[in-house]
Amino acid sequence: MNTIGTSMRLTVLGTSHGPGIECIVDGCPAGLDITEGTIQQELDLRKPSDEIGTSRKEEDRAEVLSGIVDGRTTGAPIAIFIRNRDVDSSKYEVFRRVPRPGHADYPALMKYGESHDLRGGGQFSGRMTALIVAAGAIAKTMLAKLNVRVAAYAQAIGSAVDEESHSFDDLIASTRQNPVRAASPSAAERMKVEILAARKAGDSVGGIVKCVAIGLPVGVGEPFFDTVEGELSKILFAIPAVKGVEFGAGFRAARMRGSEHNDPYAIVDGRVVTETNNAGGILGGLTNGMPLEFDVAFKPTASISAEQRSVDLKEMKSTALRIGGRHDPCIVPRAVVVVEGATAFVLADLCKRGGFLG
Amino acid sequence: MNTIGTSMRLTVLGTSHGPGIECIVDGCPAGLDITEGTIQQELDLRKPSDEIGTSRKEEDRAEVLSGIVDGRTTGAPIAIFIRNRDVDSSKYEVFRRVPRPGHADYPALMKYGESHDLRGGGQFSGRMTALIVAAGAIAKTMLAKLNVRVAAYAQAIGSAVDEESHSFDDLIASTRQNPVRAASPSAAERMKVEILAARKAGDSVGGIVKCVAIGLPVGVGEPFFDTVEGELSKILFAIPAVKGVEFGAGFRAARMRGSEHNDPYAIVDGRVVTETNNAGGILGGLTNGMPLEFDVAFKPTASISAEQRSVDLKEMKSTALRIGGRHDPCIVPRAVVVVEGATAFVLADLCKRGGFLG
Amino acid sequence: MNTIGTSMRLTVLGTSHGPGIECIVDGCPAGLDITEGTIQQELDLRKPSDEIGTSRKEEDRAEVLSGIVDGRTTGAPIAIFIRNRDVDSSKYEVFRRVPRPGHADYPALMKYGESHDLRGGGQFSGRMTALIVAAGAIAKTMLAKLNVRVAAYAQAIGSAVDEESHSFDDLIASTRQNPVRAASPSAAERMKVEILAARKAGDSVGGIVKCVAIGLPVGVGEPFFDTVEGELSKILFAIPAVKGVEFGAGFRAARMRGSEHNDPYAIVDGRVVTETNNAGGILGGLTNGMPLEFDVAFKPTASISAEQRSVDLKEMKSTALRIGGRHDPCIVPRAVVVVEGATAFVLADLCKRGGFLG
Amino acid sequence: MNTIGTSMRLTVLGTSHGPGIECIVDGCPAGLDITEGTIQQELDLRKPSDEIGTSRKEEDRAEVLSGIVDGRTTGAPIAIFIRNRDVDSSKYEVFRRVPRPGHADYPALMKYGESHDLRGGGQFSGRMTALIVAAGAIAKTMLAKLNVRVAAYAQAIGSAVDEESHSFDDLIASTRQNPVRAASPSAAERMKVEILAARKAGDSVGGIVKCVAIGLPVGVGEPFFDTVEGELSKILFAIPAVKGVEFGAGFRAARMRGSEHNDPYAIVDGRVVTETNNAGGILGGLTNGMPLEFDVAFKPTASISAEQRSVDLKEMKSTALRIGGRHDPCIVPRAVVVVEGATAFVLADLCKRGGFLG
Repeated sequence: MNTIGTSMRLTVLGTSHGPGIECIVDGCPAGLDITEGTIQQELDLRKPSDEIGTSRKEEDRAEVLSGIVDGRTTGAPIAIFIRNRDVDSSKYEVFRRVPRPGHADYPALMKYGESHDLRGGGQFSGRMTALIVAAGAIAKTMLAKLNVRVAAYAQAIGSAVDEESHSFDDLIASTRQNPVRAASPSAAERMKVEILAARKAGDSVGGIVKCVAIGLPVGVGEPFFDTVEGELSKILFAIPAVKGVEFGAGFRAARMRGSEHNDPYAIVDGRVVTETNNAGGILGGLTNGMPLEFDVAFKPTASISAEQRSVDLKEMKSTALRIGGRHDPCIVPRAVVVVEGATAFVLADLCKRGGFLG
Repeated sequence: MNTIGTSMRLTVLGTSHGPGIECIVDGCPAGLDITEGTIQQELDLRKPSDEIGTSRKEEDRAEVLSGIVDGRTTGAPIAIFIRNRDVDSSKYEVFRRVPRPGHADYPALMKYGESHDLRGGGQFSGRMTALIVAAGAIAKTMLAKLNVRVAAYAQAIGSAVDEESHSFDDLIASTRQNPVRAASPSAAERMKVEILAARKAGDSVGGIVKCVAIGLPVGVGEPFFDTVEGELSKILFAIPAVKGVEFGAGFRAARMRGSEHNDPYAIVDGRVVTETNNAGGILGGLTNGMPLEFDVAFKPTASISAEQRSVDLKEMKSTALRIGGRHDPCIVPRAVVVVEGATAFVLADLCKRGGFLG
Repeated sequence: MNTIGTSMRLTVLGTSHGPGIECIVDGCPAGLDITEGTIQQELDLRKPSDEIGTSRKEEDRAEVLSGIVDGRTTGAPIAIFIRNRDVDSSKYEVFRRVPRPGHADYPALMKYGESHDLRGGGQFSGRMTALIVAAGAIAKTMLAKLNVRVAAYAQAIGSAVDEESHSFDDLIASTRQNPVRAASPSAAERMKVEILAARKAGDSVGGIVKCVAIGLPVGVGEPFFDTVEGELSKILFAIPAVKGVEFGAGFRAARMRGSEHNDPYAIVDGRVVTETNNAGGILGGLTNGMPLEFDVAFKPTASISAEQRSVDLKEMKSTALRIGGRHDPCIVPRAVVVVEGATAFVLADLCKRGGFLG
Repeated sequence: MNTIGTSMRLTVLGTSHGPGIECIVDGCPAGLDITEGTIQQELDLRKPSDEIGTSRKEEDRAEVLSGIVDGRTTGAPIAIFIRNRDVDSSKYEVFRRVPRPGHADYPALMKYGESHDLRGGGQFSGRMTALIVAAGAIAKTMLAKLNVRVAAYAQAIGSAVDEESHSFDDLIASTRQNPVRAASPSAAERMKVEILAARKAGDSVGGIVKCVAIGLPVGVGEPFFDTVEGELSKILFAIPAVKGVEFGAGFRAARMRGSEHNDPYAIVDGRVVTETNNAGGILGGLTNGMPLEFDVAFKPTASISAEQRSVDLKEMKSTALRIGGRHDPCIVPRAVVVVEGATAFVLADLCKRGGFLG
């Protein structure tokens, strides 16, 4: 359903072509300094870039309906509303009859019937991810009390892959300075080329977001089922277009020997660390004090301008479909802050559950 | 925590060196034909093979404590107990002081303190996965009413990769006939070589389990958060050693163009299908009627006999550790039926939630 | 927290003196005919009466933010927003220092600290019950498909008690025709006298709401813990001022013999019925096909104009407090439709869980 | 379903005539001193008395299957198994055809069909309450760390009512010294007379359990829905035979004026207290620091030896039924420790959720 979390709960609602979309964050302690500005700052990072994104602009203005008074949380659930601008939704009607490949149109129509609101993708719209960003802004503020910080970046777009490693502080600095949200200017340049080539071809391209969280205490996670990986992957797969999640060495671990994969322990500055981090900071579903690291695979944007093969559900025969409108040729740059937000929310929930956060 | 699921709930408990382990499956309808034999048959598929597995044998005898009378479910929660055989646990004490690399010892000790029961891995033991298999046996029986079937197989072990595609019926037949749970005799042979080489080196090796489910109705899944991918990945990451999960094209999608990745719709025999299945049978978090397909990456077994670098937590200094006992050089063959069981449980839960199962 | 329910989920948020209050109902099937008018009609039943209620009027205009398009549910979560009118909140500041007896001021300040928003009672305001009424309007529409109907009435106000029994159809007709929501004109008259006497004395008075639901199938309820009584009482006690809930003979059962209390079975018109209904329609936590009947005790309104003894939390000494403003001298008449709404929500959830509702 | 709680979770399973019954308590911190003796001591308080109880004796021996090693909790879920003794279940078959008045037979058969295990009441058996007592023993140990203590007593049995008030320490001392669990020897004597009279008449009698908890911090409870009253009443109504729950003045509040019901604040020994406790220690769903007080109404035992009117479900006609076996003529004395256990469990869960318990 539309609520996730245990000690912190996130509810999302609305559709991209109704009055607006909204998230409710329940479980946030009273007395935290959060303003509409705190949330807006994060939302702005999700906006499409002129250079490489869709030319359709949404203002995405955060309006606090509940839970924050005079810039402080009250302990009541926090509700953030983002009003939709007036949009012509008529063009979506055809998709009831001819579902778009790669979109949820067909299964959603089968599940909800004629009453399903598929304008703009309805409740399956990528627009819903703005709500995860808003919730993430609140969660980041909570985590800051523990000195836990989260940063993500575009690690690959199409064939442009960033193989370098980056310090955490570099990440934060770099990704805000290029529209691709890459970790270095050179990577950004290569990735931009991929995106523009896809756009020029009336096509789209996929990519990978890598996410890192530092400062986590040891022992976050609630076995047997509520592991760090399990809780993160559940929310990550709710982000439209995500097709894979891997932690640490991930799928590479499948080809490794144990002697190579096991991270040896060492003492550095009086702290227990591991010399490598193939585990991605997690053992037995629990944080082990090393940086949490994981990758998220995004498929290429489903909406492309090239003609596609589909079917006419009324006449039950093959047909061709051409999707108008303007779309992001690559969703990855805008997804970076969404992955950060989802991660921050899950970590705040798990830290609260484990008694690390009051 | 130790309970998962919504309309179906699975609770696991016990540790590998206490009296036993147990699972409770709540939400199973009354009147289903299930015997201890039904469950035992599945549990037997998880037993280590003489050829390629650990030489330590557990009987894993399923004992129904509740919910089944005279071979039929009663509607009450089903409890299955698996008694532990008497085991010498003394050797585990050293790991309180010198944690094993790749195991949960260190974070678990930090989380639970001195009272943590780390004998045999405690509640982090791979032995707990027998409970997922037991729950899976029940779920498979439920799904059979919908003609939904689940099959998994070892798709890769180390560098031995099975690139072929297999019909569903072949899968079921083949995997039961080789100890590796590979989909063809030739793949089994190549994988066996990898496992035996690792064992000979006192080492271990990872791999990939591929899972397929057919017969699912369109529209299974509960957006926004309870997507098919999200619900599956959550339970899959609770299986010890899982480091990655991808659906359909998965991480390959990151390098694809939209025109290549979008699965075109077609009408075949009066049914809506897609010509390719890069989506892995899921769009917008909902099943689309195509086979559900996903891969699960397993790291190499953490317990190896080669000497490893660790630390002495009491003296806070580096030390060497050698782990005795006999361990599976590769967990993948035994994990195949675990992945099947986890998948069946999640699908039964989602089918019940969606009103597809009574 | 602020979410309740399993297959149907209700989330409430907002405070009485912020921008507004809102409820989200998740789990409602697509294709149901519901308009803002459907909801408004129920909300209007909660409005204070000129004759016996507070002179402060709230418009309580329901605004659908999500989940209903063109008068039909879409399957997405339904969000209903009720905007607060501009209110002078300055008078509430004093209650931070001198908590009102019978209100949540003191424990809420201890729990949430200085950031707690106690204007108008904050999230403890009786105004939040409008959201239960709105959710109830949706639930009643769902239940109508099963021919399940819910009706409540004022059974007692102060010493005016209605000992008569009433047919279900009379209930619906009568309660809408008097401001007290009594089941007969004579009862209404006697209760009005109690209310006006309390008001004249600058005081308030309590009462009992009796609720009946008919048409329920046999076997609704999910043992062991999710009994009909348990699920109902949980939401009923969330209604401010509720102090007791009893089913069927309730507390009178404590004085009865088994031979008197057990309801004998009989066959009437080919249906199994019981000759009496001391069970209130529930056995073993399950509906038994007889009318569901229960009573809810409401304490007198906490806000009274007479001077009360309280303490100054800053100086930690006794002090006197006089509460201004205009308040309902009795909350019972307005609570009748709230009890109906809460009941309808729980029954819709349980009917959906039990497979009685699609 | 069969799991309840949020930060603490209790799962119950089994039936009275299968292998046994079991509870699982998840969320208990590691390092707590609990032995089988701790649990057995509480279970023994639930045993029937020779004088006034059933002559059927169950040993109710607690066996810890998981979560406690060497007398200390490990942080893993705690499982307690109580084996059933061999019982002749043949006599229950008739109730499939002729349901017992006041029992769950009829609705359970309609819900679960022929596969329902109604031997001994199946999962509706009063025997399941032993599991609440066991969970309560664990919860009481947790609460002891906060100096929170819970005590209940028989406040009324039939027409024998104990109108006196009792100090908390007296309660603990007195109730253990008489089989009725009354708060004074004289009350015990009067209640015993009621019970023996009912037994002599082949009948049964109901009663009221009053429960008190002291030492609770201010602010326990999680609005809007997870109020102290709501959480308590939900589990209390899962206890078979409970028909009503009221807090503080409860149903008496319905007849009171606000000036009489509102508890005035005062400062005593530098602490904020209220002069009266009509609120029963709860305001706005939160504890206010005063003793938590509530009453629970129990109906008379449904099994009586007198002949009763029932129906033959096969022939759909009226018939007479006589129930053999030996039953408690009054369930109240044995229910006292069950109410205590349920209360302790809820309070431990809420204290943990509120951050009062680590």
